[in-house]
Amino acid sequence: MSGKTADYVLHGYFRSSTSFRTRIALNLKDIAYDQVTYNLRAGEQRSEGYLQRNRQGLVPALQLPDGSHLNQSLAIIEWLDETHPEPPLLPQDAQQRARVRSLSHAVALDIHPLNNLRVLNRLRSQFDADDEAVKEWFQHWVGLEFSALERRLSSEAETGKFCHGDTVTMADICLVAQSVNNRRFEVDEEPYPVIRRIVETCLKLEAFERALPANQPDAG
Amino acid sequence: MSGKTADYVLHGYFRSSTSFRTRIALNLKDIAYDQVTYNLRAGEQRSEGYLQRNRQGLVPALQLPDGSHLNQSLAIIEWLDETHPEPPLLPQDAQQRARVRSLSHAVALDIHPLNNLRVLNRLRSQFDADDEAVKEWFQHWVGLEFSALERRLSSEAETGKFCHGDTVTMADICLVAQSVNNRRFEVDEEPYPVIRRIVETCLKLEAFERALPANQPDAG
Repeated sequence: MSGKTADYVLHGYFRSSTSFRTRIALNLKDIAYDQVTYNLRAGEQRSEGYLQRNRQGLVPALQLPDGSHLNQSLAIIEWLDETHPEPPLLPQDAQQRARVRSLSHAVALDIHPLNNLRVLNRLRSQFDADDEAVKEWFQHWVGLEFSALERRLSSEAETGKFCHGDTVTMADICLVAQSVNNRRFEVDEEPYPVIRRIVETCLKLEAFERALPANQPDAG
Repeated sequence: MSGKTADYVLHGYFRSSTSFRTRIALNLKDIAYDQVTYNLRAGEQRSEGYLQRNRQGLVPALQLPDGSHLNQSLAIIEWLDETHPEPPLLPQDAQQRARVRSLSHAVALDIHPLNNLRVLNRLRSQFDADDEAVKEWFQHWVGLEFSALERRLSSEAETGKFCHGDTVTMADICLVAQSVNNRRFEVDEEPYPVIRRIVETCLKLEAFERALPANQPDAG
């Protein structure tokens, strides 16, 4: 945490994809925020203090200037876009918004929930999954959905420099957070050239780079 | 399918929770739709014909009057709310919208993706999970998240007759679809009196009742 206190406080964890998404969005909106971090591997997100901020015991929680909290990264990003419209993270047109949301949800609903820490831990505890089996599970869901995403992104006219046109949207935020997470599980992204190009383009932007897990105070 | 052709076609499956959510929203908005159904157990959603409508090979897809398709149930519901504002499925105020989205996502991201057919099938194929183990997995995630949801709904002032105030929102749609799905896996909802009350209230509404899996053309 810096010495100066910001109006917003992000409660999260460096390696959490959902915290990563939220950091990117805050950076894109140029909103200053302090961070309070919880070591998910030590279960700190289930402490009574944190449960007051998020009853699910999941990161992130965004503390607003009035002291209230928002939960769920996509709900937070939608809120940020509604209350801080520039630069927009969703297009104006309803059908185009639906495309961006559907690309976002293809990652945030159909990949990430299957591959986060608590689920991989459950595979270990309920099914005695070892590291190899966990990696196979992780790669299975990414492979299935990244193949479908690559087909969409490479065939739909709306794809541009980014997932949707030539400006960053919520879809890029979700995609980059997933792709960076994939590295830890040795996912081969060679079969996904459009995805790779978009992720590389995003990571050249300061808002993404500054949000990377490795660049957080609790990274280690 | 009825003899009369509607402008909208919902491509789905009676038992799919995401199709169920979409049917509820269409009914609440009083939008007429035909249904084309795909037997997920027979893999019909992976046919080339369906992949043209949804490259993920997941139901649902909503075919619009212009022949284009929307994917991802929550993106469809947001689109419906933007293009057919009455009755609203999200509140006007940004912070209240964030609450409804976070309740919705607590079900749609943190329960449902872990418990749908393809995931349960994967547990069987990768980890030799039997019916008992699959049921334990299903109940584990529901128990964790329904406990947290019950704490939120029972303690937050915004909860009313429904999840958020006295009108139906997207959060109720997600909750009801999950609760109905729970019945197939013998989830005990006794510890969740507020959730039960809200689900019962919703199911008295014609829009919910008509959308029930058992009331679809492909039920059986």
